[in-house]
Amino acid sequence: MLPKGFLVNGVKCGIYKNRDKNDIAIFCSDTLCACVGMFTSNLVKAAPVLVSMKNLKKSADTAKVIIANSGGANCSTGKRGMVDAAFECSLVAEELGIRPEETLVASTGVIGQFLPMVNVIMGIDKLALKVMAGRSDELAAARAIMTTDTKPKIVSKKIFVGGKPVVVWGVSKGSGMMHPALKAPHATMFAFILTDVLADRDVLRASLEGAVEKSFNRVSVDGDTSTNDTVLMLANGVAANEKIKKGTPGYKKFSRALEYVCVELARMMAADGEGATKLVEIKVKNASNAAAAKKIAETVATSPLVKTAMFGNDANWGRIIAAAGRAGVKFNPDRTDIFIGNILVFRNGMPAVFSEPEAKKILQRKVVGITIDLKQGKSEDTYYTCDFSFDYVKINASYRS
Amino acid sequence: MLPKGFLVNGVKCGIYKNRDKNDIAIFCSDTLCACVGMFTSNLVKAAPVLVSMKNLKKSADTAKVIIANSGGANCSTGKRGMVDAAFECSLVAEELGIRPEETLVASTGVIGQFLPMVNVIMGIDKLALKVMAGRSDELAAARAIMTTDTKPKIVSKKIFVGGKPVVVWGVSKGSGMMHPALKAPHATMFAFILTDVLADRDVLRASLEGAVEKSFNRVSVDGDTSTNDTVLMLANGVAANEKIKKGTPGYKKFSRALEYVCVELARMMAADGEGATKLVEIKVKNASNAAAAKKIAETVATSPLVKTAMFGNDANWGRIIAAAGRAGVKFNPDRTDIFIGNILVFRNGMPAVFSEPEAKKILQRKVVGITIDLKQGKSEDTYYTCDFSFDYVKINASYRS
Repeated sequence: MLPKGFLVNGVKCGIYKNRDKNDIAIFCSDTLCACVGMFTSNLVKAAPVLVSMKNLKKSADTAKVIIANSGGANCSTGKRGMVDAAFECSLVAEELGIRPEETLVASTGVIGQFLPMVNVIMGIDKLALKVMAGRSDELAAARAIMTTDTKPKIVSKKIFVGGKPVVVWGVSKGSGMMHPALKAPHATMFAFILTDVLADRDVLRASLEGAVEKSFNRVSVDGDTSTNDTVLMLANGVAANEKIKKGTPGYKKFSRALEYVCVELARMMAADGEGATKLVEIKVKNASNAAAAKKIAETVATSPLVKTAMFGNDANWGRIIAAAGRAGVKFNPDRTDIFIGNILVFRNGMPAVFSEPEAKKILQRKVVGITIDLKQGKSEDTYYTCDFSFDYVKINASYRS
Repeated sequence: MLPKGFLVNGVKCGIYKNRDKNDIAIFCSDTLCACVGMFTSNLVKAAPVLVSMKNLKKSADTAKVIIANSGGANCSTGKRGMVDAAFECSLVAEELGIRPEETLVASTGVIGQFLPMVNVIMGIDKLALKVMAGRSDELAAARAIMTTDTKPKIVSKKIFVGGKPVVVWGVSKGSGMMHPALKAPHATMFAFILTDVLADRDVLRASLEGAVEKSFNRVSVDGDTSTNDTVLMLANGVAANEKIKKGTPGYKKFSRALEYVCVELARMMAADGEGATKLVEIKVKNASNAAAAKKIAETVATSPLVKTAMFGNDANWGRIIAAAGRAGVKFNPDRTDIFIGNILVFRNGMPAVFSEPEAKKILQRKVVGITIDLKQGKSEDTYYTCDFSFDYVKINASYRS
């Protein structure tokens, strides 16, 4: 369920030449929203990322519309790419009677190809007609931003802030070149969060940064951080709650709801990673500090050997401890325990006695938890990844063609 | 051709229960050798690594024998693992009438299982008999250390130092958990270098460290640094050349020969990486500094998206520039060129016009070169990797069973 004051939709305009699917979406607010943008930390940033960053600056972090396409990343396309991305904003602005800097743009797909602007223009025309007719379609929008995703990803949560209902709605896409490192997530991933909460931008930013750090920045499909990763949150304030301030119960409630939406979207992205047959959650606990917990979880989550073992339903914990050992972080292997699900497979540096058939049963589930207990301190962290299957290779050996 | 004074052999003793192959090897010198050891930088170090480090310390970096097995890594096996590794040294020493600390030990295979010592003892007995009979067999030894390798890897080079013939002989194994980071390489990789050169240990160490940095520390199959990586060089001085000093023509000649042997072994390892159909050489040139060149080459070489594109013979340079961009190193994408073989595919931040069929022809070769020209400075570096195929997944989803 969308928050009040928002409309979303998606259509097919032929950016994808060989696929019959929606490929351009609009996320639109009736009124000007406070906006928080978080973008890829890749040194190579796509034109739409650069244009959106510029527009947010110009509009003092406000926005009304996000226009997003799949089928082309508009990255490494030089000046022409920049002109194309800026033109998308101008066209949307003109058709909807808003200012160009109130429009944000996001693109995903193959790097190094120009967007087919004739199709993009047709798509924006169609979307503008939907907006003017007041037609909203969440699934159509979610499908339009999918690339190698097999499922649309929408999560929403309703909370009450000071008695007033507030909705946090989010949509996201994965599912390869996924290892978001959003500055201030790792993937081409998009996540667009719409909410009617009333709060100042710095409050919204703090809440979103916290949520992203626990969710999108903890997802890895292949360790490749994309050039186009974009997380945008629009808040229109229509809920008319008492304005949220940091540290208040309302802030905590909203932040929990936002984190829930982001973590669920992140888990859906990992579970739907390219070729994935399961979601694998790597939890490191009792680390000496937060950075160590994160680094070990990340290193295990990105190990091809761990991920192929997960695909093979193989309780090969040796690969887990080996990956932890190369994380570049100090810990004591002889004090470390490893669990697959609730089965202790490695105890204080030594093989534990466990039932292989039972471990296999756990590994065959759709969601597999791996816990690494360092017994050093109190820090913990969780990374969301997937197994590494034949289909990952198939998808990526033939993606461009 | 082995250098004078050395004998090598390999036999089958049943460490592998389900494979009919040699699984234990000996590398043996008649006389006490100067020895240089370089070991994994993984925090988790296997028992044989720890025992070898200890023996080298005790013997002041001298050795006579290396005993190496496949079929079991003897890693994360606690005290029993340490006792087993030390016992191997004692047994070899007793049978050959040398001191235990003159014996080095190396193991590769699955982590977390105890070595079947009955088989190991039988293997050492057989090998001792070969030594006493003076029977040497290079291929038998090279095959005994293979795990998922499909080919034995031996390289040798003969040079003349001050008129005296000197031989540098090396054997290595890959081919998964390969991303050696030898301290002072990433894989379980072994490389054993035997030479009859006469030189002091510090001279030998400097020369080996230089060679390893250009070879084994520039190989990545899967980014997973093993717990058991071991490079050992034994030099018996039998060539009786004028003792090599640093900076002399003799030192340069020897170092070049050693680098040649190590680089060729490294290229053979990458080409025979798990599931590999080709060797991919990633060269970064004109970087602003050496660290930047290395980091970019390493990041591109370990990108699953780049490696699957290589498997698919797809000139998808967008994945190459995206991987370079996430390396965490500053450069200017708008000044960067990318070549696949000799074909310019990306020029100054923009797509270059090139023939896709010709690019495909180059990508179908057994050795593919990718060059990233940053046009910033004068530093360069080269990483050796392979493509990422269905067989990688197949091998690793079923390795342990």
